[in-house]
Amino acid sequence: MATSAPSSEYPASTHTPRYLTGDAAGIQEFLDKFDVFLFDCDGVLWSGDHLFPGTNETLEMLRRKGKQVVFVTNNSTKSRADYNKKLTALGIPSNTEEIFSSSYSASIYISRILSLPPNKRKVFVIGETGIEQELASENVPFIGGTDPAYRREITPQDYKDIASGDASTLLDPEVGVVLVGLDFHINYFKLALAYHYVRRGAVFLATNIDSTLPNSGTLFPGAGSMSAPLIMMLGKEPTSLGKPNQAMMDAIEGKFRFDRSRACMVGDRANTDIRFGIEGRLGGTLGVLTGVSSKEEFVEGNVRPAVYLDRLADLLVVDQDR
Amino acid sequence: MATSAPSSEYPASTHTPRYLTGDAAGIQEFLDKFDVFLFDCDGVLWSGDHLFPGTNETLEMLRRKGKQVVFVTNNSTKSRADYNKKLTALGIPSNTEEIFSSSYSASIYISRILSLPPNKRKVFVIGETGIEQELASENVPFIGGTDPAYRREITPQDYKDIASGDASTLLDPEVGVVLVGLDFHINYFKLALAYHYVRRGAVFLATNIDSTLPNSGTLFPGAGSMSAPLIMMLGKEPTSLGKPNQAMMDAIEGKFRFDRSRACMVGDRANTDIRFGIEGRLGGTLGVLTGVSSKEEFVEGNVRPAVYLDRLADLLVVDQDR
Repeated sequence: MATSAPSSEYPASTHTPRYLTGDAAGIQEFLDKFDVFLFDCDGVLWSGDHLFPGTNETLEMLRRKGKQVVFVTNNSTKSRADYNKKLTALGIPSNTEEIFSSSYSASIYISRILSLPPNKRKVFVIGETGIEQELASENVPFIGGTDPAYRREITPQDYKDIASGDASTLLDPEVGVVLVGLDFHINYFKLALAYHYVRRGAVFLATNIDSTLPNSGTLFPGAGSMSAPLIMMLGKEPTSLGKPNQAMMDAIEGKFRFDRSRACMVGDRANTDIRFGIEGRLGGTLGVLTGVSSKEEFVEGNVRPAVYLDRLADLLVVDQDR
Repeated sequence: MATSAPSSEYPASTHTPRYLTGDAAGIQEFLDKFDVFLFDCDGVLWSGDHLFPGTNETLEMLRRKGKQVVFVTNNSTKSRADYNKKLTALGIPSNTEEIFSSSYSASIYISRILSLPPNKRKVFVIGETGIEQELASENVPFIGGTDPAYRREITPQDYKDIASGDASTLLDPEVGVVLVGLDFHINYFKLALAYHYVRRGAVFLATNIDSTLPNSGTLFPGAGSMSAPLIMMLGKEPTSLGKPNQAMMDAIEGKFRFDRSRACMVGDRANTDIRFGIEGRLGGTLGVLTGVSSKEEFVEGNVRPAVYLDRLADLLVVDQDR
C-alpha cells in the first residue's frame, strides 16, 4: 500500500515511544486514558484472511471496559454493511455502526460538511456499490457508479455532446461533486465525464488515494490510480476522505461526537495510521508490530506512536484475572 | 494540450528571437541554412479541421527548393498511413514516408535502439491500432492493444493467476516492454497486467505524455492519462517517445539520417515544439503565431525560437517571383 510522506507542516516526532508489551501497570494506565479506540484493520486485527490470535478477546475486553470501538478502513468498494459481513466471516463480532469506511466518510462529508447549492447536490461517481450504498444512506443523489449506461465506449456523438455542454444529453447540470473511488469498471467515458464535470466547477473528491491495494498476495490498482488521470489532466489533487487525510477524522468526529483527547488510534503503519492519529490531535496513538512498520520505524522514524506493542493481544495482560 | 515545464538542465533562452514576417532577405537567408524542416501540424499547418491559407503553397515551395519535409505528430492512435490519409483529406499533398508519429517513434525505439534479450522482445500494448500497425511494420511482436481478449473485466481467477505469476495463463514470459499510448478502451484488467509486467522487469515506455488531447473543441483524456495510474503505482515515469522528449528526436534522426545543424523545427508551442528543437540541438527553430504560444511567450519566455512569423505562409514572400 503506497503511503504519503508526512505532512511538511507537521513537526517530526522526537519522543521515545513507550514499549508496553509485558508492562501490565503501563497498559492499565494507558487504557484508562481513553474512551474510544479507532482501529486500522488489516495488519492489526488480521492479515489477509488470517485472524490474529487474541483479536476477539482484546476487542471483547475493551467493550467490557466500556470503550467505544471503531473499525476504520479505506476500502471504498464495500459499504459498512458489507464490511461488517467481512468482519463476521473472519469471526470478529461487530456491528455496522462500529464501521467507518472511506465511502461512508465521503458520504458524510458531502451530506453534512460540504455546502452545496440545492441545484448542485448530485454526485458523479467513479466507483463500485459501496459508494452508492453509502451515498443512498445519507440521501445524497448520484449518477455514474455501477449504472450500465456508463460502462460503454465513448462515441463520436459523445465528444460533440460533451463539447456542446448540452445538458439534455450527457452532462447533468445538477452534478456538483465528482467522487472517485476504486472502480473495477473504470473506462475512458467515465474519465472524460468526470474531467468535464470538474472543469465545469464540480468539487473533486476521492474516497482515498492509496495507489495500490493488496489482493491474493500481490498489488493491484487502488483508488488513487483511478484519480491519477484526473489529477494529471486537471493539475490538482482531490480532497481525500480516507486515511491519513483529516477530512476523514472530521467525518468520524461528526458521527461519534467523541472527545479527541480521550481517543486513541491503533495501527500498524506509521505514515498513514499513526500520522492520522497525531495530525488529528487524538489523545493517543498505539503502534503494533504485526503489519507494515518495523520497531525501528516506530522508535526512530519521523512519525512515532505514543506507545507500541509487539501485537494487539498484548493488551490482554490486564485481563488475566477476570 | 498540457505542456511540460522546460527541463531544469537546459538553460533558459535569453536571446531576442528574430521576427521575419515581411523580411524577404531575412527569410531567404533563413531558408538557405536548412535542408530539413520538421513540422508540428495542428496550429502550424491547420487548426482542427481548418487548413490555413497558404499551407500547401509553402510546403510546395520548400519541396521545390529541395528541402526534406517531415510531419511530426504525437498522435499515437493513427499509423503513419492513417495519418497520411488525414493530411490528404485536409488537402495536403504528402506521403507516408514524410510522417513521423509517436507510435512509429516508439516502434523504431524498440526495434532499433532498445537492446532486448531475444526471449524478451514482446511488447504489451495499451493503445489503439496505430501502435499495433507500427509495431508490425518493424516486426516487433506484441500482445494486448485492440485484442478483444483484453477488453474485459478482471475476475477473481485473474487475481490468483497474476499473483502466482503463472505464465501459462496471463503473464506472457516473453514480454519485455510495456508501451502505453492513448487507449479508448482502457480498463482495470489492462492496467493491472501492465503494472505487473513492469514490476517483473519490463521496460516502461509511453508513446507520449500529453495529459489531454483536443477533440470537438474541448479536451479529453490523452495518452499521458493512460500512463498516470502506472506512474502513481510504480513511482516512476515512462520513457516517452513523443515530443518534447529527445528519444523521439533520436528516432527521427535514426530514420532520416540528417545533419542536425541543417535541420529546423517548426511549431506553435514554445514548451513542446520549440523546446524539442532546442534540446535536440537542431540548427534552427521557427515559431508561428497561429496556435498556442503568444508573441510574448516567444519573445520573453524561457523557451524562445530562433525566429518567428505571424503565420507559416509568410515564408512565401521569397517565392513571389517564380
